[in-house]
Formats: sequence, C-alpha cells, structure tokens
Amino acid sequence: MSIIKNKEDLMSNASSPKDKKARRIALDAIEEAFKEADPKRIVLSKVKLEGQTLKINSDHFDLSEYKRIFVLGGGKASGTMAEALEEILKDRINDGIIIVPKGIAKNYHLDRIRLHESNHPIPDESSVSGARKILELAGEAGKGDLVICLISGGGSSLMALPKEKISLEDKQRVTDLLLKSGATINEINAVRKHISSFKGGQLARAVYPATLVGLLLSDVLGDSLDVIASGPTVPDSSTFNDAVSILRRYDLWDKIPESIRQVLSNGVKGEIAETPKKDDPIFKKVKNIVIGNNRLACTAAMEKIKRSGLNVLFLTSFMEGEARHIGTFFGAMGRELMMTDKPVAPPVGIIAGGETTVTVTGNGIGGRNQEIALGAALKIIGAEGVAIASASTDGIDGPTDAAGAIVDGKTILRARNLGLDPAEALRNNDSYSFFSGLNDLIMTGPTGTNVNDITVLIKV
Amino acid sequence: MSIIKNKEDLMSNASSPKDKKARRIALDAIEEAFKEADPKRIVLSKVKLEGQTLKINSDHFDLSEYKRIFVLGGGKASGTMAEALEEILKDRINDGIIIVPKGIAKNYHLDRIRLHESNHPIPDESSVSGARKILELAGEAGKGDLVICLISGGGSSLMALPKEKISLEDKQRVTDLLLKSGATINEINAVRKHISSFKGGQLARAVYPATLVGLLLSDVLGDSLDVIASGPTVPDSSTFNDAVSILRRYDLWDKIPESIRQVLSNGVKGEIAETPKKDDPIFKKVKNIVIGNNRLACTAAMEKIKRSGLNVLFLTSFMEGEARHIGTFFGAMGRELMMTDKPVAPPVGIIAGGETTVTVTGNGIGGRNQEIALGAALKIIGAEGVAIASASTDGIDGPTDAAGAIVDGKTILRARNLGLDPAEALRNNDSYSFFSGLNDLIMTGPTGTNVNDITVLIKV
Repeated sequence: MSIIKNKEDLMSNASSPKDKKARRIALDAIEEAFKEADPKRIVLSKVKLEGQTLKINSDHFDLSEYKRIFVLGGGKASGTMAEALEEILKDRINDGIIIVPKGIAKNYHLDRIRLHESNHPIPDESSVSGARKILELAGEAGKGDLVICLISGGGSSLMALPKEKISLEDKQRVTDLLLKSGATINEINAVRKHISSFKGGQLARAVYPATLVGLLLSDVLGDSLDVIASGPTVPDSSTFNDAVSILRRYDLWDKIPESIRQVLSNGVKGEIAETPKKDDPIFKKVKNIVIGNNRLACTAAMEKIKRSGLNVLFLTSFMEGEARHIGTFFGAMGRELMMTDKPVAPPVGIIAGGETTVTVTGNGIGGRNQEIALGAALKIIGAEGVAIASASTDGIDGPTDAAGAIVDGKTILRARNLGLDPAEALRNNDSYSFFSGLNDLIMTGPTGTNVNDITVLIKV
Repeated sequence: MSIIKNKEDLMSNASSPKDKKARRIALDAIEEAFKEADPKRIVLSKVKLEGQTLKINSDHFDLSEYKRIFVLGGGKASGTMAEALEEILKDRINDGIIIVPKGIAKNYHLDRIRLHESNHPIPDESSVSGARKILELAGEAGKGDLVICLISGGGSSLMALPKEKISLEDKQRVTDLLLKSGATINEINAVRKHISSFKGGQLARAVYPATLVGLLLSDVLGDSLDVIASGPTVPDSSTFNDAVSILRRYDLWDKIPESIRQVLSNGVKGEIAETPKKDDPIFKKVKNIVIGNNRLACTAAMEKIKRSGLNVLFLTSFMEGEARHIGTFFGAMGRELMMTDKPVAPPVGIIAGGETTVTVTGNGIGGRNQEIALGAALKIIGAEGVAIASASTDGIDGPTDAAGAIVDGKTILRARNLGLDPAEALRNNDSYSFFSGLNDLIMTGPTGTNVNDITVLIKV
C-alpha cells in the first residue's frame, strides 16, 4: 500500500491530465521523503555489516576489535531504529536498553535489546528511571567495548536526570521561566544541561572508555547535534558560569528554585563536574553520525522528481516563518512558472524543507502544512500543470489526522463551486475543514518518526 | 554619483572582506534594477529611430506612413517618458499632452508636448480636466495619424472622468464600499471601468481611427495590462451586467449613489456604450508594449550579478505576503548556503521581485523592504560572505526616506553591541530606527518611477 493512503483519490481530484501528472509527481516526491524519514528503512540502508566490518555511511568499524556490543538510547523513533539494528547485528549485540514513549513498547520485537517506557513530552519519574538504566548499562561498558547510541527526537523528555536535590518540577519551573523571559533556545539549553546528569555529553562520559557510535535521527533544523535530544553524546560548549550569567541576565536568579541555585553555585565553585567539552579526551572515542534529517528527506524527494524527468531546485532545509506567507512565496514561484521559464525551466520540481509556524487567531482546525498549501493555492488560480503539496513527516500536521494537503491551479475554483471560502478558511485557521471539503488532505497516519516538513512545487 | 547615495558607507559597514564583497555585489545589483526602472533610460534604450523606422523592442513602425504624431498619456513617470520620447522624435511630434502629479511639471523641459498637472492619489477636478484634454487631442487624431500613449502607475487618479452625473465623490464612495466588502481587485475594476468614460479601453476608442502605440511602465505584478492605470488603451473583458452583478453579490446595489445606479442600469439597457472588447476592430490599430516592469528590473540585476562572475537564480517577480516572513525565507536560503551548495552552488546571487505587505501592529517607523531585511538577518547570524538587500524602486519604502536596507551575517551582532534589539524592532514595526542605528538603510531619494520591489541574496 502507498504511504499516502488516499493517493488515488488525490490524483483523481485533478481537473486535467497535466494537473493529474503534476499531482502524481508531487505525491511521489512526498512519499519518497517519508521513506527517507522511516527509521527502519534509514538504519537498514545506512548501516551495513560486511563480514566483520560495520559500515555506517562512510565510517567503518572493525567489529573484531571490540569485545562486546551494547545498544543504548531513546526517542520517539529509537524503538524502530533498535529493531532494524538487531536485524543487522543479531546476536552480536550483548545487551541493550532503549527508552520509548509509554504504550508503544509492545509494537517492537527485540531479542537482545530491552525496552523501557517513559513519559513524553513532559518527563516524569519513569523518565528518571529510564535515564538511570541507560547510565547503568553505559557504566558496564569498558575499554574494548562498542556502544551504539540510538538518539532521536523526544529523547530529552524520555531520559531526564536532574542533578542532586533538583526535582522534575524545579527543572520544569526554570525552563518555563526562561521560555517566558525571551531567552534563546541556546541559552535555555545551557541552563538545562547544567542541572542535568545526562544531557550535554554526559552520557558520552558514562560510556567512556568504551567506544561510542551515536546514530542520530534529527528533528532539529540544521542538525545542531547538541540540540537533538539535548545532545547526550555531544560536547557541550556552555559552562556553569554561562548558566548563572544567563539566569542573571534575565533577572531570574532570585526566582528559580533554591535547589537549582545551589547546584549551579556549587558548579561554579568547581564542586560539581562540568559537562564534557570539545577537547575532552572522551570524544576521541566518540563518533556521532546523523543518519536521518530533513535535508536527506528533501534530497530523496528531489532525486525521485529527477528520475521522473524533471529539472529540480532544492531551495533550503531551513524553511521557517508563518506558514501561509511561505505558501504565498511558493505560489509566487508557481505564477512565475505559468509565464516564464524561471526559476528553472519546466518541467521542474522545487523543494524546500523545514518547519513553519501558525499564529492561531481563529477557532478553526488546521495545520502549518495545510496553511502553506492554502496560501499557495490563492496565488496559482487558473494555472495548468502546477501542483503544490506540503506535509509533515510525522504524519500529524497540527492537531489533525492529516499529514498535509495538495493544491493545484483549479483548487480555488473547485472550492468556490463547493461553497468553500478560502479567504475565510485562512482567517479562521480552518484549513483542515477547507481541504476536508475538497478531499485534498494528504492522509498517511502517524509515522512514528519526525524529520520536520517538506513542501514540493511541481510544474509540468 | 551612485544611485545609492550612501553606497560607500554601506560597504564600509562590512566586518570582513568577504562580507564587503557580498554587500558590493548586492548593492550593484540593486542599482542595476533601479536603472532598468528609470523611465528616461528605459525609453531611450527601448525606443530607437532609425531613418523613418521607429523601433520599439521587436516592433517596427514606418513613420513615413503617418501624417502626424501625437503623444498622450499620464502617470507618475509619464513626464520623464515624454522628455525621452521628445529627445528621440524631436519635431516629428506634432502635438501632445501628458498628465503628471501636481508640482512636478516644472521639472521637465518639453518643446512639443504640453503638460497638465492633476491630483494623486485622490482624483479631483484637475484629474477630470486632464482626462478631458487627453480625449480632446485623441479626437483630433484621424486616420493616418500615429498616437503614442505613455502610461504609467498613478494614471488612474491623474486621469479620471466619471460618466454623466456621477461625481468624483460618488465614484470614491462605490470604490470604498467595494474595498470594504471583500470584492477582488478584478471585481472592483469591472465596476470602476463602467462608471468611467476613460478607463477600460475608452481612450483607445477615442484615438481610433488613428494608430495607437501604448508604451506601458508597469507597477502591477504580472503586468495585467488592463490594471496598469486602469487600462485606458486595453480591451476590457467585463460588462455593465457584470458590474451590476458584482454590486448585488456584495449587497451594495441599494447602498451606492443613485447616479451610479442610473448609469449602470442604462448601460445594461444598452443606452450607454459598452467598454470596447477584445474583438472590437479598434484594437486592430492598437499595439500595447510593456517597456518597463519588475521582471525586467530583476533581470537587469541578475545580468549584473552574472557579469560579476556569480551563478544566478531568479525565483519570481510575483513576490507577495507578509514582509518579515518573506525575509525569513531568504534567510533560510542563506543558511542553506552556509552549509551546502544549495539552492545553487556559490558564489551565487538569488533574486526575487514583487511587492510584499506589512501588517502594522506596533507604532514604530519602517517599510516592507526594511522588514524583509530584518527578518532575513535573524536567520543568517554568523554567516560569512552573505548579504541580503531589499529595496523599493520608487526609492520610498513605506513612510520613510529610505529605499530599503542591507544586512549580512554580522548585522545582528553589530546591532546587539549598539544596544539595538532586532526582535523588539520587528514587534514594534520599527525597522527604520533599527537600520538607522546601524547605518544600513539604502538611500536613493525618490526616483519618480515604480516597478515595485527587489530582494537580492548574495553568497560569495
């Protein structure tokens, strides 16, 4: 079955053979991106065992050099990654533990790797016991052992271990204060890493002196490795001093819980170990490899379009901003293609990835990809052979059961004939009802993975 | 002197040789776009007299076939266009009249073509007398004469002629009602053309049976010829019946002034002549030629960048949407270029044209191009060799004395060192104060022309 469950319906909504072709190529591209976001597929295609050699992309590891192999980690997609890794390494894996969201452990069939369920997106005691179990097994690994860490989005809340007397509530409180203060995400992370015993490279320290290979599935634009799941296997560039300065800068030092003030003060005095830095010798035995991210998914979509005989243009994997206006920009390129051979001569596919936002002012139902599609549709009215599709690789666009939506040059006319008002749908953030009425929602179901969103413009 | 008066200052604000180079190429490109928007330069470069042959782009007119030559028209740039045309045709012009905004007639030196000043942007009695003078001279032209019409933005209010007993206030009232009702620009124009004796091809009817050559400088995205100055020389596709249906559709029929109801009712009954349609024989003797528009300006910028040895990508001349989010998209492409060779391998220049909007919620000072630049700057923090510039070709970005602004990867850091808060500047729509503090406003002064805006991203 297709990844997009209603693919045939979406194609049959086309009003002309050219529109149908454009829709088909756009949907094929979206499906290819989804495949490249599928944790199982990613691990099976990028991790190969040839004799004693474990090949991961361009990195090679000679397994005969290692006494034992452990598999650790956590995240929304890490259970599936573990399953695939077991399929490759089989009984070469000596032990392992992976932390997954509550309720899904039963979906996996694992012989060697154990599963632990904890809470997401708000960490609770199960997250603390999860982190402890990981560190425990990491501690067992010694010189001559290989530890493969499977890290994906959501890992930050699935594996939480506040330092000393800090409670989860204290930690949550300081995060909330920082969020409201206008601190940047880097500043917030600097503080969070210094009140945790797991984040900011501290898992890597626990694994040392064993060799660590981190396989990362990135849900962070630009793959800042220290941001994905708060970077448990990655050097931290911030210090206890930074954490204190940041809290003082935003006038929060006197407002945070006493337990946190205590830990940070002790850290500044050197009584608590710093997070490991880039030049720490432990990182000589660490290799972090991003095996899945938005750019790879977009690239897969691009290659698929190219194989269909079209020219291609991949604009960016850093797409952000208000969804409808980004849609307008895609529509503007569609209009240019209606009249000229710019930006690239048709037939052509234009791709961008990232994650936009929706500022909700209405009370309708919708998602950022659906608003991109709607914003775009309004600019390509009457176009022939143009389709624009946008979807979230987790299959869940906003609070809806759709991954996204597809539009073409006849979408607005079809909508008006059905009594659907596109301007009103935008005004009321009601893109889901609009596309539901048109039967142009892209339906995949939840995919259990996330490498953000992809938008595709096709002109045939 | 440079078109950008403070070009040297803008280059010296660069923090590195690569940033300086990127800024220079971006500003050179903006200047080239401005040259291609300059009415005098456009007319002199596109209209050539060789012996008896008048060449306009690929169209040729044998002047020996015409008894007399008249020059008519109006718009903000039409005075300058007239000056250039006189320079080419000299005393071959028999007579002419051009309508320009109040206060600027003294700027022009014309021997054969007369000038009339009228009001802009709100038409008044001077606009009515202007339109009458044009139609009068058009009526003098007969079979065997050539009438060259110089049309540019603003012509719609500079030449206004309501039908029968309709007053300018009545006309304004129906426009206001339609604007508030949510009618589309096409719907509003259909009504306006049917209560005017000038718009919607009616000037062309007055010129007939003389030959008409319209030279159009377009301030309308996509150059819908019937929208530029309300299309006085262009066939109208709407009818009296359409005008009435539109007013009824928006429940305005009973709210509009009686004078307008009367004219439209008489029009439906066939008692008033329809606007001329595409198949009207008068258009056999009409040739409308767009000699300046946003795409041509963007293309000139692109060619300039190419001559500097860079790769180029021209995305669209239909750029619309909320300025800051369009800026974010440019910033997203800048970030991609910091890490990869996408969308096009550097060194590269990426260009888009159009006209964005700013939803004002704060009480600062700024403009759409300045908000594009600010939105972009926030996404390219730390970039080396990246510059993004955005400017309005009329030299007036929003209610400011700047044409736009330029940013690079160090802009946000420089701003913070100066105590300027970029997020606050966006929140308060205060981009002008922000860039004023940085000395990064692009200053050209008013250019007396308008082919909308251009945004350029350079990566060297």
